[in-house]
Amino acid sequence: MSDNQQLQGEAAIIQGFLEPLSRSWPGALGLKDDCAAIAPAPGHELIVKTDPVRAGVHFFIDDAPGDIAWKALAVNVSDLAAKGARPLAYMLALSFPVAPTADWMQAFAGGLAAAQDAFGCVLVGGDTDRAEGPMSIAVTVFGEAPRGRMVRRATPEPGDLLFVSGTLGDAALGLKVRQGETIANLDDDARSALLNRYLRPAPRLGLRAALRAAANASMDISDGLAKDLGRMCQASGLSAEVQLERLPLSPALSSATREDIALRRRLISAGDDYEVLCAVSPALADQFVALSQAGGEAVTSIGVFEGAANDRPAPVFVDESGQVVELGQAGYDHF
Amino acid sequence: MSDNQQLQGEAAIIQGFLEPLSRSWPGALGLKDDCAAIAPAPGHELIVKTDPVRAGVHFFIDDAPGDIAWKALAVNVSDLAAKGARPLAYMLALSFPVAPTADWMQAFAGGLAAAQDAFGCVLVGGDTDRAEGPMSIAVTVFGEAPRGRMVRRATPEPGDLLFVSGTLGDAALGLKVRQGETIANLDDDARSALLNRYLRPAPRLGLRAALRAAANASMDISDGLAKDLGRMCQASGLSAEVQLERLPLSPALSSATREDIALRRRLISAGDDYEVLCAVSPALADQFVALSQAGGEAVTSIGVFEGAANDRPAPVFVDESGQVVELGQAGYDHF
Repeated sequence: MSDNQQLQGEAAIIQGFLEPLSRSWPGALGLKDDCAAIAPAPGHELIVKTDPVRAGVHFFIDDAPGDIAWKALAVNVSDLAAKGARPLAYMLALSFPVAPTADWMQAFAGGLAAAQDAFGCVLVGGDTDRAEGPMSIAVTVFGEAPRGRMVRRATPEPGDLLFVSGTLGDAALGLKVRQGETIANLDDDARSALLNRYLRPAPRLGLRAALRAAANASMDISDGLAKDLGRMCQASGLSAEVQLERLPLSPALSSATREDIALRRRLISAGDDYEVLCAVSPALADQFVALSQAGGEAVTSIGVFEGAANDRPAPVFVDESGQVVELGQAGYDHF
Repeated sequence: MSDNQQLQGEAAIIQGFLEPLSRSWPGALGLKDDCAAIAPAPGHELIVKTDPVRAGVHFFIDDAPGDIAWKALAVNVSDLAAKGARPLAYMLALSFPVAPTADWMQAFAGGLAAAQDAFGCVLVGGDTDRAEGPMSIAVTVFGEAPRGRMVRRATPEPGDLLFVSGTLGDAALGLKVRQGETIANLDDDARSALLNRYLRPAPRLGLRAALRAAANASMDISDGLAKDLGRMCQASGLSAEVQLERLPLSPALSSATREDIALRRRLISAGDDYEVLCAVSPALADQFVALSQAGGEAVTSIGVFEGAANDRPAPVFVDESGQVVELGQAGYDHF
């Protein structure tokens, strides 16, 4: 039965729809206490991240509520995945301009349930309020890693191979599908797959063993390959040379951009990929690939780290003929 | 020198103003990594809370930036204080409708610095973005407590004395001062003190030893005495009888409401107090008071917990003549 009435009171939202998501975590105290308790396993520490999403910036207000919920959690879990951390728990602060309906909350909670089951974490606390402006969903995730063993962003070594997981640019192309743009050479299945890449990012949790065993540095790609690799270069003081022809592309994106290489390059650096970008010593590359495959994740070597020329650490993108290519005014900045 | 230019880029905000707040926490990695690492002391667990604040709901957009920052952190640390947890770290997600100026960010960071020094915690990570709608500040705090020893909300015992810290209603009266209302019998010093209670709540961290040693249950008062005590009664299945004449009032509030008892009762239940409400066995009451005083905190016994009459757990407020009084349509609900 459908229920389009607006919910009355915070308790109706929290106890009616969110509390069931907390039941397997004793320290959540049924979402009825002021705080939650989280203990990492002995010898481990907590790895934490918060990355709020807002209607009109990170999602469309008329996206399916289950998709909105999935993405809000996935973009945070993606950071844990890139750090080699195991997801444990998350908190959720919801702000609505108007109270949601029971139908909306049920679908939203369903998306959260699917995502937390897929990622292996549990809702432990949060907050709901009402404020003017776009709906916002602030997730804080908690993972664990052996103490001092979080895989960092700033620590690639010269000579390390640069690997990327999955395929690049699909979410950006999926956003065009979502916006109703006409795109060449795409059948319905391809459109649907791309849309799913945009709406339901899949954190690369299968890389955990590979990253812990073999990566010197790692981060996820949320703002586009060029911008995020630029951050890794800046943090480490190294440069990186990337072979454009080695970038992993999905068949759908390859097909859609066959006659428009400029579009392809824009998509590759447009963001929302949530793939993992990491640095692996050549001596460990075979082990890294094998462990990644064992975890169910595809990885591709796309370049190499090297000392920074002229003390200006930055990525360089090179095409098949060896020419340096500018990969767009790369990536997303909120300001 | 003043700088009213809008800041350009997330990096200008994070590295320019927030990174200095993270320097004493190695796991913050200079706010340059995707995640932060937090390890509780051996035998301890993390106690976590998130309670975002928004312009127009929790603060005024033209409040001093340092006051906004202080309150955003204080309302979260107040929950840790009520749980007997020691603050360690916090994350900060800022959302602005327009980029802040350097002057604004400097004052904001100054308020954060003062608050984190006062509360003993360190900035370890976060996020900034730009979105339409009111400015929002989402703090997530991390404290630690001996494993399994967090003081809970749901666990008062029948016969426990009900204690409250500090004084009630001052922040609500301070809000009236902030809004420019004319209030009887207040001199400038009193107005200023009340305004400070509204703008800069002081989490009762000095109660930690007392709560851990002697409290069966505890929570902070954010939505008003009647509403929050109602939540403790609901969670525990107990009722509580409160003697109105024992409620601790500041001289300023007593004076301002001397001729308007209805106003006094509204203020007492209006919220934003951030005092601690807790249940203490009569056998431990002397110890609780002594430890509170040793921690620099005043506490007052205001009532007693008892079995719920008619299976309806709720607080009852009684005046000097023994009459039951309705303490207003108590407290704040966002929906």
